[in-house]
Amino acid sequence: MNWRQTSGRLWRCRVAIRLVNPGLSPDIPELMDNVRRLRALRRQMKHQGIESLLITQLADVRYLCGFTGSNAALGITAHRAVMFTDGRYTAQARQETSAARVMIAAKSARQEACQWLASSGVEHCAFDPESTTVAELALYRKAVPGHRGFFQPLAEPLVRNLRLIKDSEELRLMKQAAHLGVELFLELLPHLRPGVPETTIAAQLENNARQHGAEGMSFATIVASGPRSALPHGHATAQRLPRKGFVTLDFGVILKGYCSDMTRTVFLGQPTGRERLTYDAVREAQLAAVEAVKPGVSCGEVDEAARSVLRKAGLAEYFTHSTGHGVGLEIHEAPRIAADQSQSLLPGMVVTIEPGVYMEGQFGVRIEDMVAVTQKGGQVLTPASTGWTQL
Amino acid sequence: MNWRQTSGRLWRCRVAIRLVNPGLSPDIPELMDNVRRLRALRRQMKHQGIESLLITQLADVRYLCGFTGSNAALGITAHRAVMFTDGRYTAQARQETSAARVMIAAKSARQEACQWLASSGVEHCAFDPESTTVAELALYRKAVPGHRGFFQPLAEPLVRNLRLIKDSEELRLMKQAAHLGVELFLELLPHLRPGVPETTIAAQLENNARQHGAEGMSFATIVASGPRSALPHGHATAQRLPRKGFVTLDFGVILKGYCSDMTRTVFLGQPTGRERLTYDAVREAQLAAVEAVKPGVSCGEVDEAARSVLRKAGLAEYFTHSTGHGVGLEIHEAPRIAADQSQSLLPGMVVTIEPGVYMEGQFGVRIEDMVAVTQKGGQVLTPASTGWTQL
Repeated sequence: MNWRQTSGRLWRCRVAIRLVNPGLSPDIPELMDNVRRLRALRRQMKHQGIESLLITQLADVRYLCGFTGSNAALGITAHRAVMFTDGRYTAQARQETSAARVMIAAKSARQEACQWLASSGVEHCAFDPESTTVAELALYRKAVPGHRGFFQPLAEPLVRNLRLIKDSEELRLMKQAAHLGVELFLELLPHLRPGVPETTIAAQLENNARQHGAEGMSFATIVASGPRSALPHGHATAQRLPRKGFVTLDFGVILKGYCSDMTRTVFLGQPTGRERLTYDAVREAQLAAVEAVKPGVSCGEVDEAARSVLRKAGLAEYFTHSTGHGVGLEIHEAPRIAADQSQSLLPGMVVTIEPGVYMEGQFGVRIEDMVAVTQKGGQVLTPASTGWTQL
Repeated sequence: MNWRQTSGRLWRCRVAIRLVNPGLSPDIPELMDNVRRLRALRRQMKHQGIESLLITQLADVRYLCGFTGSNAALGITAHRAVMFTDGRYTAQARQETSAARVMIAAKSARQEACQWLASSGVEHCAFDPESTTVAELALYRKAVPGHRGFFQPLAEPLVRNLRLIKDSEELRLMKQAAHLGVELFLELLPHLRPGVPETTIAAQLENNARQHGAEGMSFATIVASGPRSALPHGHATAQRLPRKGFVTLDFGVILKGYCSDMTRTVFLGQPTGRERLTYDAVREAQLAAVEAVKPGVSCGEVDEAARSVLRKAGLAEYFTHSTGHGVGLEIHEAPRIAADQSQSLLPGMVVTIEPGVYMEGQFGVRIEDMVAVTQKGGQVLTPASTGWTQL
């Protein structure tokens, strides 16, 4: 299905495309600096009748104004944007922030942002209910006592919708991060030997990542060997790699804020027929889902592409999670590549494709690539072989 | 001030002590297994008239039932406890969880937990407003449509109040983590040479941490050298260590779920008189605050102990953050060691003491220890020298 051929389902996504690419060409969106991102956001705010917006999710703040500190509240009205942080970040905020004025809060960045918004002449302020706790909302309301009904939840996540579609600079950074991941995997292969503790493997990988300039890992590195490979989230432990069995490596690096994510499963020693068949089935499922990535195809259809291969192989019940997720400034972003997701793929989205099969107490296999949605299909950003690898 | 001599202020903390140490001895609380922790929590629930509780904060879930996965919802009534997670964690949940029954949710762990609670015969369910987003609460309500007013915010964070006071096993693990931090710092010293990139230092530290069995780092490692030492949260960058200047190292490891946290600032080359005087003032402030740690002393008093030293030295305006924070399963926990905090210290609490002085564009100094509150005072868990270190 070509993305131009579907209609209603694509509406929200077309809006997103328009935001970042005024020409509405279905190509990869052009580079967006912070001023442009804020302009795109304000266009959406105006369109939805939103007078002002309070942004506290850190990745959203970074996306809009560049600030990377751990405490930030960004207030946005039709004409002004002010980023509040605390005294720890006085110098850093000035260095990093653009498109918004910086204010150092004497006490609470969030409360001062609320007060600034309430005094800016607007009647309402929208907030993101997905990143605002019930306690925080109570504090916001307390900060502006005379303004009953001032804070209103956003009906849709405006900034995360912008972040769904990566611009050319974001895609460049994500490719760099993904390629570093591939390099690290290839460097690690000679170290995968029976008897080496999983944590040593993780240490080697993370050390190499740092040496190559990674700011950190996207998440706690997964090294799951032997029967532990049946744990989809088996973080590295003191367990030693077996003489015979699978080793699943699932890891990512952060480069200039952007996360990579990839998984390969390799085998030590001689496999049984069942181990080999399971690997081949997961590989086939993964390839089918990667092939299914095209603009206009729904996330549910991509999930089904992987799931149906495993169903035919009699393994569907052992594929206990969804097929993938968006990735960017955060390791888990929209969209979700899952059975119930009608969201359509669009050029500029970056998703993981990572089916797996887990036989409790025995073994597991997962293969994962990052895939960028292009105008014509999907581009694998993590081009390490997914073929059977026996060490 | 001895903790037995104060009254009202200590009420809440006495409750916490009673929970974990029925004998009410002001000693370090005895070991608590999950069954005892749940019992202590239920006693508090009963005391406050809370029929049932939904816990979704992952550190709280781990604390109560041992499960370490990334998706969990723990429902607790007077007689039953059920931990809901998803299919990725089928095997892991069974291996790790005790004191609660495990249920694998077909779709949403949280929604199924809500439905289980609503069908368990209780009229209300409490939730933690500090770890529940506005959107999550809306989903909970949607999951049990016939139960208007079913979900009620907790007036105080019951589980975090329990976690405030570490039991003997937790203290043992935290000492291990803290001692590993000290060992890593000492191992790193010979590598701090002019010209080495900050990221290489971070990589070396993190690699050594892994080799010593750390599950990961408590937070993104801070290596801030030269003028960057004036950034309180200066994560390691490609910048090379200078021939002359401060290097601030702030890092922590995670061992069996528990975080360590320590900071040392060393000097490369020959300091100016002002650099040396600033270091000495920060050191004096840090020692004064460590000395002030005693049961019954308020967190605000500990903060003031550090701040007053820097005030006398004319440096108070450059100390732009609070003096410290609690630490445990999370890197930032209660209590906060800050000017406005009336919470009193109690045996079993573990806090950081970390004053700093930051001269924008020039240099900065911070010194941090982890300190456990004992019956008589404070015990430094990170016994690396804080004396002037010139390399």
